[in-house]
Amino acid sequence: MTTISCVGIAVLDYLFSMAELPDGGGKHYATGYREVGGGVAANAAAAIARLGGKARYVGRIGDDPVGARIVADLAALGVDVSGVEEVDGVSSPVSAVLVDRAGERTIINYTSDALFAAGDASAAADMTDVDGVLVDVRWPAGAARALAAAAEAGIPSVFDFDRPMTDGGKSLLALASHVVFSETALAETASVGDPGEGLLVIRERTGAFLAVTTGAGGVWWLDDGMEVRHQPAFPVDVVDTVGAGDVFHGAFALALAERQPEPAALRFAAAAAALKCARPGGRAGTPAREEVEELLKGDR
Amino acid sequence: MTTISCVGIAVLDYLFSMAELPDGGGKHYATGYREVGGGVAANAAAAIARLGGKARYVGRIGDDPVGARIVADLAALGVDVSGVEEVDGVSSPVSAVLVDRAGERTIINYTSDALFAAGDASAAADMTDVDGVLVDVRWPAGAARALAAAAEAGIPSVFDFDRPMTDGGKSLLALASHVVFSETALAETASVGDPGEGLLVIRERTGAFLAVTTGAGGVWWLDDGMEVRHQPAFPVDVVDTVGAGDVFHGAFALALAERQPEPAALRFAAAAAALKCARPGGRAGTPAREEVEELLKGDR
Repeated sequence: MTTISCVGIAVLDYLFSMAELPDGGGKHYATGYREVGGGVAANAAAAIARLGGKARYVGRIGDDPVGARIVADLAALGVDVSGVEEVDGVSSPVSAVLVDRAGERTIINYTSDALFAAGDASAAADMTDVDGVLVDVRWPAGAARALAAAAEAGIPSVFDFDRPMTDGGKSLLALASHVVFSETALAETASVGDPGEGLLVIRERTGAFLAVTTGAGGVWWLDDGMEVRHQPAFPVDVVDTVGAGDVFHGAFALALAERQPEPAALRFAAAAAALKCARPGGRAGTPAREEVEELLKGDR
Repeated sequence: MTTISCVGIAVLDYLFSMAELPDGGGKHYATGYREVGGGVAANAAAAIARLGGKARYVGRIGDDPVGARIVADLAALGVDVSGVEEVDGVSSPVSAVLVDRAGERTIINYTSDALFAAGDASAAADMTDVDGVLVDVRWPAGAARALAAAAEAGIPSVFDFDRPMTDGGKSLLALASHVVFSETALAETASVGDPGEGLLVIRERTGAFLAVTTGAGGVWWLDDGMEVRHQPAFPVDVVDTVGAGDVFHGAFALALAERQPEPAALRFAAAAAALKCARPGGRAGTPAREEVEELLKGDR
């Protein structure tokens, strides 16, 4: 089975369903609530397991009940959690996630600076039985180790560049085989608003495959001839976008490791993310492999 | 020692410190995080214990770790939790509380409809060794039982009317000896924007003592001659307003039960709430009795 090592953050999400997102102060009453695992790399791992791959999550949690819950939830989804390190005296990452009736969401995350500040990142470099790698920006030292090890092993590595980094992500851009930006992270990193133009700016800094997701606007990517190409989003009735980007990246990494060519892998990822958006509950709404294949078949 | 029975809701607050409150969608990163007990009646009970009174919290929680945590936190503050009922198969109330650099806050609360929907409210009517009562709007059946029992026992009862009720709060207004509105609840219940005018509208529906808190704008209240009077807020550097209203109501109920006249009780409550606003951490910032007395002395 194709195995992906997902390196970065895991979070416990406190998910509040609301009529509309809050704007400034006041008291608001949620219509629903659930606690569900979250975090970029952990969500990608959960998605990969659901999509028929094998996932390993490598990262850190605090020595608290929240951390124990995060790990137990991942393990229950079939994710290999042997690479998780518990850091003493640090609280585990948590997010308040507010979702409105249209599926739009706002996330307020707290991650202690101490969680990823120091310590040993060697677990991230373990490529034993690994066919592909995914990293996020939250644990730069772990991401660098994983991307370098993947390059050495000759396996694909996906860098989920979803928020601006202080050094412009320079070192990670140089190591990844594939980089997928969020729209805002690309705009800030390239200092250009247009997605296609932004990718061309980044092209001068790395030889990696480059793409940017724009939600319902679909995915823009650069082909070998420096042409800007577009993968439209699959149309769905959106009820919850929480974790949809993470599902996209996980699905993309899995498809690449299965040796699908990039255009097919992007299409597979777009289908998985679209189905996720049609379902509530954050990553609990990740579709199964057959559902994604079904959507892709109907679209051909 | 003066004992107040506080009847209503208890919550676990997930408190995120932020540069600014979110406005619509997106991802936000908190600079700090803590979990602290909350909820209108429970906060009032915690404040009363801190202010040198004896507090009993009477209400309901779910049969989950959050509920156990809520009760343990109250007990650790010296609050009598023998009147807490655990409801099977229901989740305990939780809130995401977002606090900005100026101390402004937005609260997103989830309370299951099932928590207070049915069951026996007789614990709320127990006035054994009780000198005063405080109720919130979250558990109307419990509030009605407590207010009626307080009236029968001839002890003061404070109705914290902080959000509009579907019946306009009619039955509770008729039972309470003292009603303290929030500005928005008064405006909606009286259909009048001006606090003083609003109190005069409500005067036609109840013989209770009437007041309304307006944050930094101070407290407006009606004296025996139907005159609108004003208690200014004590000036402080505001860092966190979370729970400040609840501290106000708890302090007011305690002072009344100590047989302070209303103007003195309002002043005591205003001083306690102001000191709370100058400190972070939600109700963990409630001042001690001596600190309140000190502030009142300096103001004379």
